[in-house]
Amino acid sequence: MTAYRQELTPVSFLERAGTVYAERVAVIDGDRCYRYGEWRARSRRFAHALRAAGLKKDDRVALFALNSEPLLLAHLAVPQAGGVLVAINTRLNESEVAYILEHSGARFVFFSPELGPLPGGIALGDDFEAFVQTGEDAPVESWLEDEYDMIAIDYTSGTTGRPKGVVYHHRGAYLNGLALALENRLRADSVCLWTLPMFHCNGWCHTWALPAAGACSVSIPRVDPPQVWRLLEEQGVTHFNAAPTVLIMLANDPAAHRLSRRVRVCTGGAPPSPTLIAQMEELNIEIQHLYGLTESYGPFTLNVMQPGVSELPLEERARFMARQGVAHVAAGRQRVVDEEMRDVTPDAEALGEIVLQGNVVMKGYYRDPEATATAFRGGWFHTGDVAAMHPDGYIDIRDRKKDIIISGGENISTIEVEQAVMSHPDVLEAAVIAIPDQKWGEVPKAFVTMKPGRSLSEREVIEHVRERIAHYKAPREVEFGELPKTSTGKIQKYVLRDKAWAGQGGWAVGRAEPGLPKRGGGPPRKQAGRVN
Amino acid sequence: MTAYRQELTPVSFLERAGTVYAERVAVIDGDRCYRYGEWRARSRRFAHALRAAGLKKDDRVALFALNSEPLLLAHLAVPQAGGVLVAINTRLNESEVAYILEHSGARFVFFSPELGPLPGGIALGDDFEAFVQTGEDAPVESWLEDEYDMIAIDYTSGTTGRPKGVVYHHRGAYLNGLALALENRLRADSVCLWTLPMFHCNGWCHTWALPAAGACSVSIPRVDPPQVWRLLEEQGVTHFNAAPTVLIMLANDPAAHRLSRRVRVCTGGAPPSPTLIAQMEELNIEIQHLYGLTESYGPFTLNVMQPGVSELPLEERARFMARQGVAHVAAGRQRVVDEEMRDVTPDAEALGEIVLQGNVVMKGYYRDPEATATAFRGGWFHTGDVAAMHPDGYIDIRDRKKDIIISGGENISTIEVEQAVMSHPDVLEAAVIAIPDQKWGEVPKAFVTMKPGRSLSEREVIEHVRERIAHYKAPREVEFGELPKTSTGKIQKYVLRDKAWAGQGGWAVGRAEPGLPKRGGGPPRKQAGRVN
Repeated sequence: MTAYRQELTPVSFLERAGTVYAERVAVIDGDRCYRYGEWRARSRRFAHALRAAGLKKDDRVALFALNSEPLLLAHLAVPQAGGVLVAINTRLNESEVAYILEHSGARFVFFSPELGPLPGGIALGDDFEAFVQTGEDAPVESWLEDEYDMIAIDYTSGTTGRPKGVVYHHRGAYLNGLALALENRLRADSVCLWTLPMFHCNGWCHTWALPAAGACSVSIPRVDPPQVWRLLEEQGVTHFNAAPTVLIMLANDPAAHRLSRRVRVCTGGAPPSPTLIAQMEELNIEIQHLYGLTESYGPFTLNVMQPGVSELPLEERARFMARQGVAHVAAGRQRVVDEEMRDVTPDAEALGEIVLQGNVVMKGYYRDPEATATAFRGGWFHTGDVAAMHPDGYIDIRDRKKDIIISGGENISTIEVEQAVMSHPDVLEAAVIAIPDQKWGEVPKAFVTMKPGRSLSEREVIEHVRERIAHYKAPREVEFGELPKTSTGKIQKYVLRDKAWAGQGGWAVGRAEPGLPKRGGGPPRKQAGRVN
Repeated sequence: MTAYRQELTPVSFLERAGTVYAERVAVIDGDRCYRYGEWRARSRRFAHALRAAGLKKDDRVALFALNSEPLLLAHLAVPQAGGVLVAINTRLNESEVAYILEHSGARFVFFSPELGPLPGGIALGDDFEAFVQTGEDAPVESWLEDEYDMIAIDYTSGTTGRPKGVVYHHRGAYLNGLALALENRLRADSVCLWTLPMFHCNGWCHTWALPAAGACSVSIPRVDPPQVWRLLEEQGVTHFNAAPTVLIMLANDPAAHRLSRRVRVCTGGAPPSPTLIAQMEELNIEIQHLYGLTESYGPFTLNVMQPGVSELPLEERARFMARQGVAHVAAGRQRVVDEEMRDVTPDAEALGEIVLQGNVVMKGYYRDPEATATAFRGGWFHTGDVAAMHPDGYIDIRDRKKDIIISGGENISTIEVEQAVMSHPDVLEAAVIAIPDQKWGEVPKAFVTMKPGRSLSEREVIEHVRERIAHYKAPREVEFGELPKTSTGKIQKYVLRDKAWAGQGGWAVGRAEPGLPKRGGGPPRKQAGRVN
């Protein structure tokens, strides 16, 4: 080792925090509370315990766990031991979990008692504590050879194919953690409430950003709105992260009230609606819209506010804030390209696919060179998201490549239609998908959840939309009810689509627009690993 | 290039700021003002102009210039062009500047008209503007091959030997810039006043940290206290950096007044005294004490405040804040070691040399493999600073290796004696050095500057000190008058020493203490490249 090279790794954040922020609270989880000095000791013990139990460099250590202090700890302790963390989505079913354990070749498995038992696994709780105590509180010799060594494998939730294992390396985790601490203004006196699952892109890398800043984590196993509102006040929370659907749930809870201190919230997975933005402002919550995928360690772009935007009327402000924005300070470059990798005209109209390049792009899919090569064709990571580029360099997602509706040869952005539906004051949430149509190929259909005690007719919804956007974009059908969601609160359009397209499997639409990637027939379509 | 690797370079900060912060002010310099959009265009023009004029990769581009927008611009434009910036200390004399131009092999030279002309150079002003305009405003193809490529050479101000060229690479500049933006809480609405020379460790890497955050620079050619006080208010300054001597000058200026907004000030080169800390607090200025050297890209450690410290009485608070602290989030590791590279006992007493390792340590001395090898012996950079390690991991500098006084076999920290002298309310500043003594080997001598209109006798100063620290540490002699200072406001002890030791050149002291590096005889001694 030369004096001027040190491999970049987020493990250094905790090692440093254990000294610099020794007396500051690192984690609160129910009755348990650890200061950074104690918590570093705990990480070292866990790391030594893993080694004593036989862990070799790059061995995979899987956690199938709800948000909790041990899951957060594993984000530091497993890489400190030289292992690779596999934090599994807790909403997956038994066979999916079995597949991930098998595919990742996990040598150690830990699980929340509520979710287990898993064969050969150790339950979080007394068993886990006993395991950790077998390790000593002493510095852990680093086995890191190169900052490109694996730190984590995050499995996407495949719906048709098998889940894919997205490989993160130490360098990317370090840089994303550092950049998010800066961009999200984390400091040693910040307090972050874990409304986002830690398994999700490693908690948008906040599992590493928080110790970088010496900030405090408040862990909750699941989003229970009254509890969230209570903790926001009791713990002096300054930051949390959540998908818009979770924010809608929080804003409409009876416990919702204006907070005494300003709270910063990062949100992603869908653009925040004008209604939501207004509600959040009334609650004293500042929204930061961001965008990324599992393949980009979570957040890659941010909607950076421009001077003057905060003074705009709500609708205009919301239109600006709905854009996904620009690459964050350490992210690299985002482009919007056509099928030949040419940049689309940055006119906020022309559509293309978002491609990414930089230090916070995954290393590849674990044990899947074919999928890796496809994703990286042309030297850029292909997101599968269809967007327009604004003249000021902000990207603006119009759809998932597989969601966009092609009706009579015209593109219809399901997001645009959803926002028109949701602008109705009685609507809580909406999702729009393509349904087959003999004449137009596809037409939009809306699935709508009403606010409690409100009701609308199909006609009223359609009329509301026709007053706002082009008539051909209005839904042909409207269905009312609950929307199916992922563990992170994202609406599962493929479930709606599966239902609508049942029996239409072989029905080929066979159209492709210039500037848009070609698409095949109907569902089942594949769900990619979006941020939410 | 793979999709997941991008060479780290601070040039990316400006390229991004030109989009994300296009409408925000990047630099104000007198009547001139550039927004980031325009300023990126200007950097691209400058870079293209350099290439058109014959710049090849790694060619050195020297600036002998006062703080100004062109010098700040050169920190981005020169590396963007593929060149290496040599920002020369403006207080050096003609032969020193000639040596640096010769040693660095500078292919381009730019100079402030007030300081020039330099042979073959281009004057900042109309000539420079004409030169920049020869370049086009178009993206600049990167010639960066590796993030370890040179970005700058910072010459230390040698006093006996020749100046040494400290080589910075893109990776270190990127990481230090990003980390300082985080640690110093820079944001897009921050405004930094350039009271620190930009040539000094590239402005403690703030030349790169500010565009990373999208913050605004206010450039001034020199520290003129009434102007500083005016600009602090007029420009809404939130941050500045300066050595304690500069802060003393500002605090004692008739224009000093309590600021309406809180301002963060980083200071280094000497610990801030209790008096200074109290004065700054009254002025609504928050002090952040930091430490580093030219060889560590400026700041390496920070005095991170601990919970409860701000409530301590002034003297105790100042004692805590006088420590140099802990490595910042991207800095790496600092140790305090004896001659065999063993860590000294962390008891706040045992003395050793500070050694550093990490990504913000220089690559070496330019064209000087011998000095590089000496500085890097044992795989660590040797600072030449003597410190104690506190049990909480904070380093506490007691002296320069060459400054420490060895009197009757006991170590005397000149810093400790200086602080005892300066605790007298009538004293403005003090410097303590060793003078030869036939019986004790060395004894302390104090040089004291009184506050205007105050006077003390030699006896009164000595008595004041004896009431505070061990008697053998009290100065044997006291001399009153102005103190010689460097361009950055640091007291030049070697000037005092040269005077005191005149005619004692061959007088060998020949003692070495365990735990302290061996030392030779009297002066002339070499001045290292401290942060100030």
